[in-house]
Amino acid sequence: MNSYKCVTAYEGTRYNGWQKQGNTANTIQCKLEETLSKMIGEPIEITASGRTDAGVHALGQVFHFHCSVELLKDDDGIIFLTEINNFLPKDIRLLNIESCSSRFHARLNAVKKTYQYRIDTSTYGNLFLRNTAHHIASPMDISAIKNGASLLLGTHDFKSFCSNKRLKKSSIRTIYDIHIEEDKSNNLLLFTFTGNGFLYNMVRILSGTLIEIGLGLRTPEQIPAILEGCDRALSGHTAPAKGLFLLHVFY
Amino acid sequence: MNSYKCVTAYEGTRYNGWQKQGNTANTIQCKLEETLSKMIGEPIEITASGRTDAGVHALGQVFHFHCSVELLKDDDGIIFLTEINNFLPKDIRLLNIESCSSRFHARLNAVKKTYQYRIDTSTYGNLFLRNTAHHIASPMDISAIKNGASLLLGTHDFKSFCSNKRLKKSSIRTIYDIHIEEDKSNNLLLFTFTGNGFLYNMVRILSGTLIEIGLGLRTPEQIPAILEGCDRALSGHTAPAKGLFLLHVFY
Repeated sequence: MNSYKCVTAYEGTRYNGWQKQGNTANTIQCKLEETLSKMIGEPIEITASGRTDAGVHALGQVFHFHCSVELLKDDDGIIFLTEINNFLPKDIRLLNIESCSSRFHARLNAVKKTYQYRIDTSTYGNLFLRNTAHHIASPMDISAIKNGASLLLGTHDFKSFCSNKRLKKSSIRTIYDIHIEEDKSNNLLLFTFTGNGFLYNMVRILSGTLIEIGLGLRTPEQIPAILEGCDRALSGHTAPAKGLFLLHVFY
Repeated sequence: MNSYKCVTAYEGTRYNGWQKQGNTANTIQCKLEETLSKMIGEPIEITASGRTDAGVHALGQVFHFHCSVELLKDDDGIIFLTEINNFLPKDIRLLNIESCSSRFHARLNAVKKTYQYRIDTSTYGNLFLRNTAHHIASPMDISAIKNGASLLLGTHDFKSFCSNKRLKKSSIRTIYDIHIEEDKSNNLLLFTFTGNGFLYNMVRILSGTLIEIGLGLRTPEQIPAILEGCDRALSGHTAPAKGLFLLHVFY
């Protein structure tokens, strides 16, 4: 049995998210499994670092799979990648493939993830970012956002920032870094979150809360009470999926 | 009667080009006329600086129109633009509107235009540029392209770079500048053409010819003979529409 670790990038717009679902083949996992199975000639099941919601994008999603065929015998991956990218839909790309230990697990072995939330701050909306950024024309207070972000750093119970009400496992996570960056030449505001793991919708609720701080609807000083309250009703709205990118998974 | 000059940006992917056509309402001109007519309450016809082909994009297309209503009475354009952009499809934006002389004509008064051709040089194709750049993974000789471009500058008969075989008017045009730029951090190669006017498909054939020079299929030294020959068969292929942007129209 051979094991492979892959990196994929995709635009989530057209898909019902990452995860294979009973009633639809229109997920990114399905498209990748279909194409890999055809190319390799046996049914392939893949396991990702985590699911992404409908409309969410990835530049560096990681998954693993096993197969009986040795895929990279006389190939450093270039031939395989060129061929599979010819068969994949244009909005899903396979960027890397490498052999890995049969014990490597894309989800269980992930130690750190980076997500980015992109906001288009142009006046009428950049039409070329209509599916890949959240458009907010109203001016935002960047230093307030930075203050709010700094209060989210560290290890907390992030229950207030999780959409899953029936979460049975721990909702304690550590955020190592939140980088708030203005790209003025492209009218972009970027929130980049790095942490040891993120709960369901957590990055989108963190982003929605920071946006509300930027718009003056909340103050940064409310963050500690939101965290302590452990109640989804205390935090901000879930920012739209189309602004969210999974950038990198660390092992 | 009131006259207005407008600037619009659009992604051409979903449309059958700029120009209104008998059998389809799916053109950018139609969408703008429909929306303007509804907003203003009378039938509006618009005249652009020139048509763009199906799949070609614009960041700064200019058009003019006349109407009986005074649109910008207590408005510097912001209110009008905000409202119309709410009604327009997300891949068409109106960026500016201003009053102009009733004698202003977007096509006849244009003295200079800038077009850009974008090539995605990434290995497997940047999925976020799949509709807005032409993907070429093979390495290209940039200095050969620059040499070829320099031989295209100035005033020439560009008949060899025109798809319209039955052109009755003059095919003499002046190219003031061709800027060849590598944006290595985004894996882009950009050709930016500024001239007093461009024939049908001219920028795409110029780009196709420069691409063939870059790939070593032609030499820069062939350019003078291609120009002198005045024969479409001598020049390169018509590069795909999706890489082309109308950037700016000068008056």
